[in-house]
Amino acid sequence: MSETVRADGRAVDALRPVTIERGWSAQAEGSALVSFGGTKVLCTASFTNGVPRWLTGKGKGWVTAEYAMLPRATNSRNDRESVKGRIGGRTHEISRLIGRALRAVVDTKALGENTIVIDCDVLQADGGTRTAAITGAYVALADAIAWGREKKFISQKATVLFDSVSAVSVGIIDGEPMLDLAYVEDVRAETDMNIVVTGRGLFVEVQGTAEGAPFDKRELDALLELGVNGCAQLRDIQQGVLEEEK
Amino acid sequence: MSETVRADGRAVDALRPVTIERGWSAQAEGSALVSFGGTKVLCTASFTNGVPRWLTGKGKGWVTAEYAMLPRATNSRNDRESVKGRIGGRTHEISRLIGRALRAVVDTKALGENTIVIDCDVLQADGGTRTAAITGAYVALADAIAWGREKKFISQKATVLFDSVSAVSVGIIDGEPMLDLAYVEDVRAETDMNIVVTGRGLFVEVQGTAEGAPFDKRELDALLELGVNGCAQLRDIQQGVLEEEK
Amino acid sequence: MSETVRADGRAVDALRPVTIERGWSAQAEGSALVSFGGTKVLCTASFTNGVPRWLTGKGKGWVTAEYAMLPRATNSRNDRESVKGRIGGRTHEISRLIGRALRAVVDTKALGENTIVIDCDVLQADGGTRTAAITGAYVALADAIAWGREKKFISQKATVLFDSVSAVSVGIIDGEPMLDLAYVEDVRAETDMNIVVTGRGLFVEVQGTAEGAPFDKRELDALLELGVNGCAQLRDIQQGVLEEEK
Amino acid sequence: MSETVRADGRAVDALRPVTIERGWSAQAEGSALVSFGGTKVLCTASFTNGVPRWLTGKGKGWVTAEYAMLPRATNSRNDRESVKGRIGGRTHEISRLIGRALRAVVDTKALGENTIVIDCDVLQADGGTRTAAITGAYVALADAIAWGREKKFISQKATVLFDSVSAVSVGIIDGEPMLDLAYVEDVRAETDMNIVVTGRGLFVEVQGTAEGAPFDKRELDALLELGVNGCAQLRDIQQGVLEEEK
Amino acid sequence: MSETVRADGRAVDALRPVTIERGWSAQAEGSALVSFGGTKVLCTASFTNGVPRWLTGKGKGWVTAEYAMLPRATNSRNDRESVKGRIGGRTHEISRLIGRALRAVVDTKALGENTIVIDCDVLQADGGTRTAAITGAYVALADAIAWGREKKFISQKATVLFDSVSAVSVGIIDGEPMLDLAYVEDVRAETDMNIVVTGRGLFVEVQGTAEGAPFDKRELDALLELGVNGCAQLRDIQQGVLEEEK
Amino acid sequence: MSETVRADGRAVDALRPVTIERGWSAQAEGSALVSFGGTKVLCTASFTNGVPRWLTGKGKGWVTAEYAMLPRATNSRNDRESVKGRIGGRTHEISRLIGRALRAVVDTKALGENTIVIDCDVLQADGGTRTAAITGAYVALADAIAWGREKKFISQKATVLFDSVSAVSVGIIDGEPMLDLAYVEDVRAETDMNIVVTGRGLFVEVQGTAEGAPFDKRELDALLELGVNGCAQLRDIQQGVLEEEK
Repeated sequence: MSETVRADGRAVDALRPVTIERGWSAQAEGSALVSFGGTKVLCTASFTNGVPRWLTGKGKGWVTAEYAMLPRATNSRNDRESVKGRIGGRTHEISRLIGRALRAVVDTKALGENTIVIDCDVLQADGGTRTAAITGAYVALADAIAWGREKKFISQKATVLFDSVSAVSVGIIDGEPMLDLAYVEDVRAETDMNIVVTGRGLFVEVQGTAEGAPFDKRELDALLELGVNGCAQLRDIQQGVLEEEK
Repeated sequence: MSETVRADGRAVDALRPVTIERGWSAQAEGSALVSFGGTKVLCTASFTNGVPRWLTGKGKGWVTAEYAMLPRATNSRNDRESVKGRIGGRTHEISRLIGRALRAVVDTKALGENTIVIDCDVLQADGGTRTAAITGAYVALADAIAWGREKKFISQKATVLFDSVSAVSVGIIDGEPMLDLAYVEDVRAETDMNIVVTGRGLFVEVQGTAEGAPFDKRELDALLELGVNGCAQLRDIQQGVLEEEK
Repeated sequence: MSETVRADGRAVDALRPVTIERGWSAQAEGSALVSFGGTKVLCTASFTNGVPRWLTGKGKGWVTAEYAMLPRATNSRNDRESVKGRIGGRTHEISRLIGRALRAVVDTKALGENTIVIDCDVLQADGGTRTAAITGAYVALADAIAWGREKKFISQKATVLFDSVSAVSVGIIDGEPMLDLAYVEDVRAETDMNIVVTGRGLFVEVQGTAEGAPFDKRELDALLELGVNGCAQLRDIQQGVLEEEK
Repeated sequence: MSETVRADGRAVDALRPVTIERGWSAQAEGSALVSFGGTKVLCTASFTNGVPRWLTGKGKGWVTAEYAMLPRATNSRNDRESVKGRIGGRTHEISRLIGRALRAVVDTKALGENTIVIDCDVLQADGGTRTAAITGAYVALADAIAWGREKKFISQKATVLFDSVSAVSVGIIDGEPMLDLAYVEDVRAETDMNIVVTGRGLFVEVQGTAEGAPFDKRELDALLELGVNGCAQLRDIQQGVLEEEK
Repeated sequence: MSETVRADGRAVDALRPVTIERGWSAQAEGSALVSFGGTKVLCTASFTNGVPRWLTGKGKGWVTAEYAMLPRATNSRNDRESVKGRIGGRTHEISRLIGRALRAVVDTKALGENTIVIDCDVLQADGGTRTAAITGAYVALADAIAWGREKKFISQKATVLFDSVSAVSVGIIDGEPMLDLAYVEDVRAETDMNIVVTGRGLFVEVQGTAEGAPFDKRELDALLELGVNGCAQLRDIQQGVLEEEK
Repeated sequence: MSETVRADGRAVDALRPVTIERGWSAQAEGSALVSFGGTKVLCTASFTNGVPRWLTGKGKGWVTAEYAMLPRATNSRNDRESVKGRIGGRTHEISRLIGRALRAVVDTKALGENTIVIDCDVLQADGGTRTAAITGAYVALADAIAWGREKKFISQKATVLFDSVSAVSVGIIDGEPMLDLAYVEDVRAETDMNIVVTGRGLFVEVQGTAEGAPFDKRELDALLELGVNGCAQLRDIQQGVLEEEK
């Protein structure tokens, strides 16, 4: 690893300070306020007994996610999507990513005919909002499943979550691969990648984009390694938070 | 005053615990996370030099507000207005109320050709979200004006805010007038009233609605008195928070 | 009362000429074309046997209202909300107000599982459109209920309307409280209030807004008194119209 | 002509009673409340000095029209297009037809850089709403042009309207061609045709549709003859109304 | 007929080269890629067993159509209607026309409770897109009906199509009636007419519009004759294509 | 490589038959109808001199893309996004991907203040529509740039395209990595990856998703190798097509 020091003093392979405030919401069945440095995302999991009509009678549950940003989460204000009357492509894309990431570790048969909707609302944005959202959403999801089990909507013996999942961004800046980009880094990155990894270290999603110059296999490998290591740290933080008494 | 004790142990003329976390956002020019008991609203004020085209060249500024609720702020999940593609009547109504309340204490000439947009996003809802929003929004607004003055967008001598403003709900439950209704009280109220009062004790808005039986002049007077007293307490809390070093 | 004479020669406590043309529509189950001076609102009541799905099987009926303005009801043309693809906040707000006002005098159990939708379309606007709408809507509603009773959708003995309801605007202009503001008065008012009162003289809605300077309790009381008196006159006009053979 | 007598006692080649209440609106520059039997359409013409940006500087004016129906104009209530958030195909189609019909008799050069928007709102519908709308719109348009001339927005000498225009429906019922169909006739017609004709008797639009069986040339000719005669009567009514002192 | 020769060398009463590529789509139950000169429309017919809820149990089928244009079908690019979030009036109007034209030759009782949706997507536009769409849609419809018969959704003996249907545009240019206008001709036409005719030579739709000067009966007759002859040629082409082995 | 043979007889590392019909459209400045087996996408490039307002005066051009699918491109019909009034997440996501892919090989300074919009409309879908779209879009883009150069909107010497770009899908089915998945393969794939590669063999996008089981580094490497080889073949096809006389 390089000894480059970043604007905020981090090493290239260091995460920003990560905190997960479990059970932030008094209303939702599961919730977490997750911070990756200045990025703060409120994740709530809403548990409903029953499934959408198109899934009824198949003995399977459904997990889905919606992502959004408060208008002044960012440095300048963005118009609300509700006011514009339509959801932007970026919002759609990230909502779908979060949903896929969570479903990758859920056994929907074990979940039974129950629905869990995860809302990830960015209260403050400083890069990596989608990866923070996935990491926090997993904690909210785990608590919503525990709630469903306690309420007997889910069988006591069923293993609904067969693995955990977390996500982190990586990128190449001035030719150097770096972990967990803050906003000022993100806008300068030549290549930007989001990696979603299970607790066991397997890939769920790999989304790399050349923002500046295209990248080669060697660079791709370096980014993947950084990302896998970052996700392993996030998994340990998730685990620690979930082991605490709620 | 009656000696009725409420579900949460309050006297009929007592506010819930009120906190205002000033400067919650690192991004906005002014911000406050306000709590009225279990109701939590994030208020951010976005300052822009310049005004909308229809106001250009009139030497006056513009203050407006938008209110919204996170989908799982409430006990069961509501679909997002961005997903539905339209803003509901209740959201519109409250956004307009907050804007009018704030403009009632702003000298738009003194503000100069600057625009301040206040976003009030309900993170958790337990009754009184609109009154908490107005109360917190005033603090965010005051800080945004201070920011504009510091950045020389507003004249040093101009008195932009000629008064403060806060709001509280009152209602009649089982024939008894009560201050600052929590959600469980709100749904049972025969009459529900929102009162917006300036720091000097004058009315900006009085919105009373008979949800059950119509009400008479004596009941109206009792509610107004409770509300004016509640707003006086809120004014003191606002003042205390604004006097602290930021 | 002051002896101020207004632009149109009225005393400060006088209504404009009010007419209610009952049964204007040959299509609707109840209808009224109401005029408050130059303000003309066509109110139609559509009776449907049955209720929306969410109310089915509860033995209760449903009354709701929609308000809208023709594009050239006003002095300059406004774009149609259908063309803009969304309903504005003001329209939403007034529709909700009319619905609440009417429901305040309806016994929905006595109505049975029937739905009445009241449409209030402003054909010409000269101030006070929402108060004229409520006043005319009551007449249309009464006729729609009579129609439902005649068609045996409503029990002969049930008292569906246990009171009548009307509404009027009041305001303070140049420090003087006045009744039933025309448009030219409305735009100059420091305080503007809409009052909805039952035939028995009880309040259903009190909505006062400081457009200019905030107002005190003494002014509020003066406005309420004017409004209650105005609504008593409107009640008598409604009664007169409803007693005529249709 | 056949001696068939229709449900309302008319001869097959007779119009329903037609009235045009000129100057109905106190707000619009031109207006007419037109009735074709039970069909009542309020037509208002809004005159604006200036043209849309895409026409600026070409020395030509613009005339356009919008058609809509109140929700309870018909026998059962239709949802508002503003509530549905989109305009239906039928509404679009009729708005475009009215605009084309009016522009066919307007010299846009003589109009100068002025815009006239005609709103045709159906207050009550009993067949032939689009043809009544065109017939009334012409009167509103003529008055708006007179207004513009009086205000000196239009040159005194310019002949803006070089002809008049009116419209009527015709159709074949039980094999018999008939003029000006009422709603009960319209739904039974095998062929339905709307004809727009100038004061001089030339065609502006011919829109014939086989609702039941396709039609042949002989039937087409019979319908055209009926329609041309009906439009001549409408032209005389328009002329009579426009010759009165306003 | 005049001996005028047109820009593309055609006689005034000649169609452009017409081709119908039957079965273009490997996915749809019926399809045709139709060309009228440079105008190319892909028509697909989607067969579904069953009817919309409002038609259930009436023993009748349903045929409907949707028309659209690719953004760069035309000489300059048009924004997508999906991006604009609303369908334009022209699109609505043409979709409705195509649906009516097809239904005019379908016996919906014989079709049984089946639904056929015809999509007509203009890949390249050079005038006459709606008439080409109708002409191609008939071929797609015929094949979808054959498919439904083969799959036993339609009775073997039922005659669903009791006639064929095609359409063509005609217009008057420099005083001369002409058949099947190309785009450069269409924009210059004083009168523009679309004619929909059955295989037996009866009219389904006649839609004539004076774009420039109004037209008289003699001109109308000349246009109708040209159109009927054009449609007879199109019918022969349709028949030829449908007689080929698929 | 395995000797598994696929449903269509291909080897696991073989592309489907690929054709690129260059200049398909007579209207667009550049166009290509691309087929990957049964997948057919019409790509048109629209060249406009000038840039969107937010880019004006920066001496740079703009390239963007829109992707859509005809309603019956697929095996069963999908409702039109224009009819639904909103664009789905999948459409948004793919449009953005195509735009990024193309911009990765464009020197926007060399393009100058010109805009190119690429429309990719799927006429028939059988898996890999987004990768076919990118591959065809590059050809359309190249021709639009040549057109702009010929028309002198682009400097003769400027190298606008500094590389080519193509894309292909890869996936793991029954544990076996395969190239260019057809629809029946795509729905069965455990892991699905889209790879966008430049003519020089560098990565522009890597988007891998575990649809079933998560994947490991070894599998990822196998997929990347397959994809890079597939893109090299596509690059040769693009080059061959572009070298032909147009």
